[in-house]
Amino acid sequence: MKVIIVGGVAGGASCAARLRRLDEKAEILMVERGPYVSYANCGLPYHISGVIEKESSLLVATEETFRTQFAVDCRTNCEVVGVAAKKKTVELKNHVTGEVTIEKYDKLVLSPGSAPIRPPLPGIDLPGIFSVRTVPDARDIRAWITRNDLPDYSETGFQAVTKAKRAVVIGGGFIGLEMAENLIHLGLEVTLVEMLDQVMPPLDPEMARLVEGHLEKHGVRLALSDAVAGFRQAEGGALEVLTKSGKAHRADIVIMAIGVRPETALAKMAGIELGERGGIRVDEHMRTSDPDIFAVGDAVEVKDFVTGQWSLIPLAGPANRQGRIAADVIAGRDSRFRGTQGTSICLVFEAAVASTGVSEKVLVKLGDTDYEKIYLYPNSHAGYYPGARMLAIKVLFRKSDGRLLGAQVLGQDGVTKRIDSFAMAIQMGCTIYDLEEAELCYAPPFGSAKDPVNFAGMVAGNILRGDMPVTHWDAAKSGFLLDVRNPPELAVESVPGAINIPLHELRARLGELPRDREILIICRSAQRAYYATRILMQNGFKARNISGGMLSRSHLAVGWN
Amino acid sequence: MKVIIVGGVAGGASCAARLRRLDEKAEILMVERGPYVSYANCGLPYHISGVIEKESSLLVATEETFRTQFAVDCRTNCEVVGVAAKKKTVELKNHVTGEVTIEKYDKLVLSPGSAPIRPPLPGIDLPGIFSVRTVPDARDIRAWITRNDLPDYSETGFQAVTKAKRAVVIGGGFIGLEMAENLIHLGLEVTLVEMLDQVMPPLDPEMARLVEGHLEKHGVRLALSDAVAGFRQAEGGALEVLTKSGKAHRADIVIMAIGVRPETALAKMAGIELGERGGIRVDEHMRTSDPDIFAVGDAVEVKDFVTGQWSLIPLAGPANRQGRIAADVIAGRDSRFRGTQGTSICLVFEAAVASTGVSEKVLVKLGDTDYEKIYLYPNSHAGYYPGARMLAIKVLFRKSDGRLLGAQVLGQDGVTKRIDSFAMAIQMGCTIYDLEEAELCYAPPFGSAKDPVNFAGMVAGNILRGDMPVTHWDAAKSGFLLDVRNPPELAVESVPGAINIPLHELRARLGELPRDREILIICRSAQRAYYATRILMQNGFKARNISGGMLSRSHLAVGWN
Repeated sequence: MKVIIVGGVAGGASCAARLRRLDEKAEILMVERGPYVSYANCGLPYHISGVIEKESSLLVATEETFRTQFAVDCRTNCEVVGVAAKKKTVELKNHVTGEVTIEKYDKLVLSPGSAPIRPPLPGIDLPGIFSVRTVPDARDIRAWITRNDLPDYSETGFQAVTKAKRAVVIGGGFIGLEMAENLIHLGLEVTLVEMLDQVMPPLDPEMARLVEGHLEKHGVRLALSDAVAGFRQAEGGALEVLTKSGKAHRADIVIMAIGVRPETALAKMAGIELGERGGIRVDEHMRTSDPDIFAVGDAVEVKDFVTGQWSLIPLAGPANRQGRIAADVIAGRDSRFRGTQGTSICLVFEAAVASTGVSEKVLVKLGDTDYEKIYLYPNSHAGYYPGARMLAIKVLFRKSDGRLLGAQVLGQDGVTKRIDSFAMAIQMGCTIYDLEEAELCYAPPFGSAKDPVNFAGMVAGNILRGDMPVTHWDAAKSGFLLDVRNPPELAVESVPGAINIPLHELRARLGELPRDREILIICRSAQRAYYATRILMQNGFKARNISGGMLSRSHLAVGWN
Repeated sequence: MKVIIVGGVAGGASCAARLRRLDEKAEILMVERGPYVSYANCGLPYHISGVIEKESSLLVATEETFRTQFAVDCRTNCEVVGVAAKKKTVELKNHVTGEVTIEKYDKLVLSPGSAPIRPPLPGIDLPGIFSVRTVPDARDIRAWITRNDLPDYSETGFQAVTKAKRAVVIGGGFIGLEMAENLIHLGLEVTLVEMLDQVMPPLDPEMARLVEGHLEKHGVRLALSDAVAGFRQAEGGALEVLTKSGKAHRADIVIMAIGVRPETALAKMAGIELGERGGIRVDEHMRTSDPDIFAVGDAVEVKDFVTGQWSLIPLAGPANRQGRIAADVIAGRDSRFRGTQGTSICLVFEAAVASTGVSEKVLVKLGDTDYEKIYLYPNSHAGYYPGARMLAIKVLFRKSDGRLLGAQVLGQDGVTKRIDSFAMAIQMGCTIYDLEEAELCYAPPFGSAKDPVNFAGMVAGNILRGDMPVTHWDAAKSGFLLDVRNPPELAVESVPGAINIPLHELRARLGELPRDREILIICRSAQRAYYATRILMQNGFKARNISGGMLSRSHLAVGWN
């Protein structure tokens, strides 16, 4: 059996290594059009800044490794330029020698990845506009940043460790944010232009607000809700990034990070089916519409197993698993890809921004109304132990049966502990009742006796059991507002129109509250408001807790101010 | 309805607060014999060292909070000295006034906690021997450490920031290790005496070896496998800790941390049933054998839901959940405690030592042979991103169906991410196949595309699918040993009797290997050995991988050296 794998890196290289382990006799040819068969593209932004010092650190496995350890015929700088699916051949072009050869396959695995989107805007080909996808890209960016023929800004007083001083990053997704941070580390002045009204698309916008505030605090200038219209050469050698709103951002370097599109040129040549999102359509065995062609990684569409929707998930984790599954199936095994739940995390200036499962905006887009959401702001670990930081957590769950649908966790400590608990819970079809009972690790430096994950379950459970009707700031504009905080807290920030009865006086002052209106209760974090909700409900009042309290209000755009 | 709750802190205070939320009308009396109704006893070791500066930080909620926010009649320094279950009364003694009163209850909740074990050894009552259970204990220890009438050691050259200079900690469990660390932080010379041959009882001994090495590296002197026989006054005001092996350890302060026993005096007075481990027997509703008496927290026995065995789990997390459940049931709800899985974590000099589920030694004790184990040593995050540290992981799973049984994770980075993933997985009855497919968060600063949890699933899956027969160092003494590392690695450490064929030469040198013997394969971490196992198996050899490779060998006591 001869298997040709097109593309190395996460999906292809995993597939080749796994296949060899399963089948010592298979003839395996892996071709990669770039110079490196397996490199850590996730590390590129950190290599550009020098956080990862050596380029060689990014090279995971060499051609030599594949040849000697895995007996894989591995060819770099070698591109598949044609596929003849009926004849089961591919046409290979060696980019060093220019030679073109034909190779026959029994099974073909496409792992072509995705390409940075580079729209045909005026000036897009000007020097100084880069994507961040390959090791050579990183090398080019580093060289450009330190080049010597840029104008000299030394008299402007701007402190930069390199010659390039102003960067514009276009796109507020993972790579855009990582590049913004790493360019700031290099001393550049960074403007981030994003077409949407938020950064970090996996997050809901109100959670993204927190990320945006954090970026601004660290010096990133945000230009949201504005799309790039083009580029032009400015005086003195710099570029100008022109936007639809008519702005012009000066830049010595521009990073394009507006997303990726699946590489489907080969799939089209092979005549295999594409999906609704433009990726290669595969079944759960990673098999395409041609039974002898498999596809894995960024180029394929996979089912989101929370929403049941097809989606494109250009992440290394799923690519690795898919490569492995394709190898299993080619070797005659019954492995299946279970779909994705979109678990992701991004480092943003010492904060971690993570999500798993579905976001509210996706539920809204799908017309799904069988969900409730909560906001909570627990400490990352016991508050009395040094270093505790506040986490911001949003959890989505199904109203009808309590199934956990999604979670977004932001913070500067303890984020991975929680997002992975949520991720494992979603994978196993947990309900919020399971979260209540979860036995997670606790000692003062690491957590709380009621972990934030338990706490999320308890809050959600209170809602679904009818113990704590809930509302949210955007729906709370017209209610009767009761603030149960203590007066000194109100002096810092109060809510217009809310009457104040501190929690400890509530039982004695019930007479001041209306019995014919729904009372919406406010405190700092929604905990005392929960206690107040219980007191009012048991005394015959209609009451709702405003989820997340004042802490939510600060990042929910509700038009109060 | 009148409910009396005996004991505050985690279990009792949770119960009182929850009950009030569910029943605004219930009369709730909570009595606590100590001076504080709710304090963070988990923080005591850190307060003793000053890591947690203020004693007030440890006071979670005051009597006043309970009175005003929860309308709970809360009495501290008030002890229940008698229970008459038939009459449904308790006898209360006020330790300030000496007054004794009788109170009637409809429901009684016992949350008496556990008491440090203090065996009646000769000299146990000498001054300077402390337990660590309450805020006053911490205060006493701090006072003792800084007292001025201890002998002056200033000329011995020993550096200490306090007057006490030598401490003996007795007991190598959580509190013992936390105290050892915090006393070292205070500049004391610390000897840890432990009766067992290992520290950290939830761990298997070979994993505890790593903790012991870490403790010694940080200056803790270990005296394992030696029990305390008694104490005596030494010259100059110090103590001597005498052990069964005949040693005498000088100490200016002694910390007794040999474990706790459930406080069952009240349960005995009430005539309710105790369990086989000496704790109060409760059903899943936290109800004792008397239908009007509930019990929660350290004093009760709970089912370990992995092993099905009764166990005592003196941890804050379960206590909190149990208090909540008892309140639910008293308020007429059908809440159930699902049992425990023993999830725990301990900070040991910047390392985290964590476990969840069952350990191998418990399986062995139960006579359970339907399990396999693996050792792995993955990076805490992508090796190319700065700060990655090696994790040491042991995973136990059922041979027959792959169910995850337990995990032990040690390391200086990323431990909570993994142990909580394993914990959630065990709670949901995951198999190792579920771990293979888990979609956990990944970005270079936080993990790897194949997370250590995935990796554990894959290694275990390889074993159960028959792709990679495995063995362990203790069983590998008589096999034919093949080391597939490269010669420079062998120069650092080699295994006597092993022949060396580097992996990349293996296919060409198969003729050097015996076909009639099982070949046990060694490399650094068992990864290359896995590849070698696959090559040999597919070429008709009998082969096994030695789990964890050389990295396991260093902490598995196998008698090789």
